[in-house]
Amino acid sequence: VAEFDLIDVIRARCALARDDVHTGIGDDAALLAVPAGQLLAVSTDTLIAGVHFPASTAAFDVGWKALAVNLSDLAAMGASPAWATLALTLPHADEQWVAGFADGFATLAGQHDLALVGGDTTQGPLGMTVTVHGFVPHGMALLRRGARVGDQVFVTGTLGDAAAGLRLVQQSPDAGSQPSARALIERLNRPTPRVAQGRALRGRATACIDISDGLLADLTHVCTASGVGAEIDIDALPASAAMLALFALDERRILQLSGGDDYELCFTLNESDVAAALQESAGSGAGATRIGRIVAEPGVSVRDRDGRSMTPARLGWEHFA
Amino acid sequence: VAEFDLIDVIRARCALARDDVHTGIGDDAALLAVPAGQLLAVSTDTLIAGVHFPASTAAFDVGWKALAVNLSDLAAMGASPAWATLALTLPHADEQWVAGFADGFATLAGQHDLALVGGDTTQGPLGMTVTVHGFVPHGMALLRRGARVGDQVFVTGTLGDAAAGLRLVQQSPDAGSQPSARALIERLNRPTPRVAQGRALRGRATACIDISDGLLADLTHVCTASGVGAEIDIDALPASAAMLALFALDERRILQLSGGDDYELCFTLNESDVAAALQESAGSGAGATRIGRIVAEPGVSVRDRDGRSMTPARLGWEHFA
Repeated sequence: VAEFDLIDVIRARCALARDDVHTGIGDDAALLAVPAGQLLAVSTDTLIAGVHFPASTAAFDVGWKALAVNLSDLAAMGASPAWATLALTLPHADEQWVAGFADGFATLAGQHDLALVGGDTTQGPLGMTVTVHGFVPHGMALLRRGARVGDQVFVTGTLGDAAAGLRLVQQSPDAGSQPSARALIERLNRPTPRVAQGRALRGRATACIDISDGLLADLTHVCTASGVGAEIDIDALPASAAMLALFALDERRILQLSGGDDYELCFTLNESDVAAALQESAGSGAGATRIGRIVAEPGVSVRDRDGRSMTPARLGWEHFA
Repeated sequence: VAEFDLIDVIRARCALARDDVHTGIGDDAALLAVPAGQLLAVSTDTLIAGVHFPASTAAFDVGWKALAVNLSDLAAMGASPAWATLALTLPHADEQWVAGFADGFATLAGQHDLALVGGDTTQGPLGMTVTVHGFVPHGMALLRRGARVGDQVFVTGTLGDAAAGLRLVQQSPDAGSQPSARALIERLNRPTPRVAQGRALRGRATACIDISDGLLADLTHVCTASGVGAEIDIDALPASAAMLALFALDERRILQLSGGDDYELCFTLNESDVAAALQESAGSGAGATRIGRIVAEPGVSVRDRDGRSMTPARLGWEHFA
């Protein structure tokens, strides 16, 4: 199977038309039109087999996740998805695997009206880089640097599920036969980018980030960029029913604070905007939970309801750490 | 060395300011402004160590080439470079290697006023995906599909040099000590994207492509997209002095017809536009050579000056072929 045939396999499954795509896959570059009054938001993320997903992950799930982690970055900016490019590296030309991958990618792309406009297939160790493009009106993007002392800190959805799912997969290859375990593994393999929530927070959230490296690590980025600190109430962290069913308190807290790959949004609101923002956010899917507040002292500290410090030494997972 | 420190190493070396970059590296996505009246041209290409460059290639050259192959795609569209993202995968956090890579990338970026606006560093087998963005006025892009019967076929620069350089590197690790060999290896490791030439051809060339997989393979793409064929005069193919010095006729012809990685432009002109287009192209660097013509019969055929068919069985190099 030649490169061009693999591209056709992908193209056939990712055929989504958009008026703003003047030239899509098949020339030296795509030609695209950005609407007047909008900034272009661009983000890129790589997944490598054995590093970012277990090598045993189903092709459909890999395709889904490769796009999801990128859409999550657009969500964190409050941007509306438009286009993506896909650079796919494969050890050999496995048409069936590529078809499954493309189906997963296309399923999520279709949910967000996103067109695949270009790409590259190469031979090498399994991995892929997706670059996503979206639009956000001038002055409306959600940046990391706007958190202010006194702002409240929120997260969408529940925390730690993906890391819990990874632990289950690593413990046993057939962990997914039990319903709660399956729910957590699904969170690992098919994360939901919070695109609608990000858009609903435009003009409201003072700062926003998506949780890819773990709550503490990512909230630290917000604090550093904003020149502030944060206090987290550990007892307020939202947990899924599956997490509560399978993990005891201490283990759960570590997963919620430091587990990566959830792709929930962490954002800050001025007290006066909380009610309106939560109402809008509630209409857009995952809900949001208040988990702490922005303070002047740098760093992220964690406290339990008795005020005891619970800050772990290690702030989440870092590549090469 | 953590991911964030590596990013700082790259960022410090690729600090190029552009007014249209509202938010660059350091948030969840870059925020960018496309000028009114311009389409956005987007292309992405991956290089994998041992596949697209010898593992022994200097870090500087890898950084240069990773950007060059992408800029070449913009050149082939007639687009002006603006921004890039870089997804870099490394087996371990080698700060010195990353610094050399970033220097090579930044040197070429600086020549084209291109800003690095985002990226990702991951752990895994050495490789990188660059996604470039450029601008081209509405209706002025150079597409593959516009070649018409009777058009003349041209290439910029000289052909086969990079493939010749690769052969020399593979034959002997210190091939570069001889001047002609060094010139060919330099063409392999630091290709020159023909950005100015591509821009000069706007509104003139009926079709254009960059030569990454070899002249025959890439001209075949143009012919297929345009619904035409082409005849190549093998004796007209431009050769560098270094190529003439080191390779005999038969070997040279194979390299010129099928050798990949030259990143010259192959384009077609209506007879009436040839004089004006060549004059403009001459002012922009590499010059251009007429190598054949577009015909009605599909496929690309090759003839010598006596009219004998010289078409090789294998049309260039394909991934997974």
